[in-house]
Amino acid sequence: MRVALLNTGTELLLGDVQDAHLAFIAREILSLGLRIEERRTVGDTEAIRQTLAELFPRCEILFVTGGLGPTSDDITREMVADLLGLELQQSSELLASLRQRLRVRGIKWTPGIARQADVHAGAEVLPNQNGSAPGLYLRANINQQIQSPHLFLLPGPPRELQPMFRAFVMPILRSVVPDSALIERRLYKIANKGESLVEEAIGDRVLAIPGVELGYCARPGEVDVRIVGKAKAIEQADAIIRSTLGPSIFSAADESLEEVIVKLLAKGNQTLAVAESCTGGLLADRITNVPGASAVFLAGYVCYANQAKIGMLDVDPQLIEKHGAVSEQVARALAEHARACAKSDYALATTGVAGPSGGSPEKPVGTVYVALAGSGETIVKKLFFPTDRETFKQIATQAALELLRRRLIVGT
Amino acid sequence: MRVALLNTGTELLLGDVQDAHLAFIAREILSLGLRIEERRTVGDTEAIRQTLAELFPRCEILFVTGGLGPTSDDITREMVADLLGLELQQSSELLASLRQRLRVRGIKWTPGIARQADVHAGAEVLPNQNGSAPGLYLRANINQQIQSPHLFLLPGPPRELQPMFRAFVMPILRSVVPDSALIERRLYKIANKGESLVEEAIGDRVLAIPGVELGYCARPGEVDVRIVGKAKAIEQADAIIRSTLGPSIFSAADESLEEVIVKLLAKGNQTLAVAESCTGGLLADRITNVPGASAVFLAGYVCYANQAKIGMLDVDPQLIEKHGAVSEQVARALAEHARACAKSDYALATTGVAGPSGGSPEKPVGTVYVALAGSGETIVKKLFFPTDRETFKQIATQAALELLRRRLIVGT
Repeated sequence: MRVALLNTGTELLLGDVQDAHLAFIAREILSLGLRIEERRTVGDTEAIRQTLAELFPRCEILFVTGGLGPTSDDITREMVADLLGLELQQSSELLASLRQRLRVRGIKWTPGIARQADVHAGAEVLPNQNGSAPGLYLRANINQQIQSPHLFLLPGPPRELQPMFRAFVMPILRSVVPDSALIERRLYKIANKGESLVEEAIGDRVLAIPGVELGYCARPGEVDVRIVGKAKAIEQADAIIRSTLGPSIFSAADESLEEVIVKLLAKGNQTLAVAESCTGGLLADRITNVPGASAVFLAGYVCYANQAKIGMLDVDPQLIEKHGAVSEQVARALAEHARACAKSDYALATTGVAGPSGGSPEKPVGTVYVALAGSGETIVKKLFFPTDRETFKQIATQAALELLRRRLIVGT
Repeated sequence: MRVALLNTGTELLLGDVQDAHLAFIAREILSLGLRIEERRTVGDTEAIRQTLAELFPRCEILFVTGGLGPTSDDITREMVADLLGLELQQSSELLASLRQRLRVRGIKWTPGIARQADVHAGAEVLPNQNGSAPGLYLRANINQQIQSPHLFLLPGPPRELQPMFRAFVMPILRSVVPDSALIERRLYKIANKGESLVEEAIGDRVLAIPGVELGYCARPGEVDVRIVGKAKAIEQADAIIRSTLGPSIFSAADESLEEVIVKLLAKGNQTLAVAESCTGGLLADRITNVPGASAVFLAGYVCYANQAKIGMLDVDPQLIEKHGAVSEQVARALAEHARACAKSDYALATTGVAGPSGGSPEKPVGTVYVALAGSGETIVKKLFFPTDRETFKQIATQAALELLRRRLIVGT
């Protein structure tokens, strides 16, 4: 089936917002054997109407994102109604849930908000569990006089669209796409290994299996390997990938590294503290993003200033004086003292030069020490990630979490 | 002049790579009063030919990215030649510079590489200072028999395209675009106010000014207002927006709230510490994302467990016992003790229920107290953001930062 995507939003064409929908939707629907053939982006103008009219006869499935909100530039709903000759009817159920949503949040009602309760005659509502504008599904040729594809109108914010897509769009697609059940998709996540190294290890052998599609996606400190194909071929590829990459794979279930860590700690009834200099709270932030983190995470010491390292974690000022705040010795002290102060089973520590300034010839921007203290010997690793500040923080926390994961899986 | 962008690349449609060209080009050309009206993305297939044919009569300027490299799926150059009836001629100059480039890098010559030296008859070469494939400029109606726009063929990798665009494309555009069209763009960022409230405050009056385009973009805890138009109209709209929203605008220069905070603190020579329970390190993380944060940010206490609140910041266990960890009293104690421990001018604190579990009838998921301690009285605010865990953390930190910003701007 031919699939197209239309992103609406003047903010996209002005470069104020980067589109995240194409990548998300492409990955989700690949598991059904579907691929997007064409994507268009237009502003919140009459161009939406023209583009919809052009795309209707060109595809069997069409996703439209944005333009469903309460403000005057949200016009997708009305244009679709107009093009397909469908009446918009106010849903009293949606209206009540909008009123309830605003009441709970203490937000004032404005007249535009009610437009979000308008539903095309015959359309199915896709509930929005993270925002006010619901999505809408209009089945193919919903008005039998007019040719139209399976049409999904979806909200613009990714945090609204993504859960809606998984919960409500995917089941509809499964019922609409023939043979979708035959195709499998697997994902393997690997931390702190380069994309080319991963490709060198598995690429040729996996691609030698007929009918397997192989893809890589590199992110800061992480490579995701994706295989798609029929069940038997996928089993063969899976065996090669698992036997070759082994414990380097931190998840084969699309979990983040922090989710894996929280799960491993909870399983072993163990606790964690962190002491962060250069990563400035990101390590604690990532861990506490995981629901249930409070069972295993005790405390984070963001000792950014040297005075904080001394005051919060009792690091010897002479150690800092002698070796510098960015040193193996200080990383070790931070981890060991954090473990002692928080009375945790493990503690991770980071100290480094995030940049853009603050580097020196011996410790250039990108230098980082990560340390892990546990019941045995403390491990300290020196690493080098010369990049921008935020990417540096991401890769450094990834390295720290991976250090802990390797320790935890040995114990299991 | 009507402008369109065509991104080619199967990797884009599979979600393996995120497009960065639209945002980059849109921002660059806005200074010339140009806006992209339509963007399309297609794979490395015959779809390129069809899309080019559709776009040629629809725009006066067309940017095409990708498909200029040495591999078999790089077909843009040939399709353009074919559509416009132009011969491709091998440039001996380009060929020599390709050979030189590979020799320097010790890369083996493959036959496909020579294709990158092919130039359409009459086209202008746009040198690539960061890669091998040059860009190409074909002026409008280059073949007088066929209608075509000013056509720019540009390489796919952003680090090649971006310097080429600034150095070679912009000068051509300046000579082609009539300069009467000088258009301005302004952006205003507002924290912790709903999109509909902002629209209600300014929408009608700004839209009443002829020639002003108004747009909103809502993010967690933030609304961005964007106006675009000719200078005089923009001045009128600016006056309305500033006088109506006043101090609610935290930036009119596209800065993040944390950048504004770091700048304000640095200007006043003041320092900050944070004590975080429910936001779990995100507040510290956001502040330390700002280059130069180390001048103003001293320490972050991520006191996730109750024991950490007691151990790290000496919160009275009876206070927690009596009022609960999520309470005005504990928020106040966290902020005041963090300020005292870190010896900072200000301290922010957060304590709340991020969810998905842990709520109670009196303190449901989404409840949060944010506190600000300074030299005067400590301020504590109770807020309610029932949403997913990560968005909750984002909005709660936004509320805390905004509390501090309001205090800092009163002092200036």
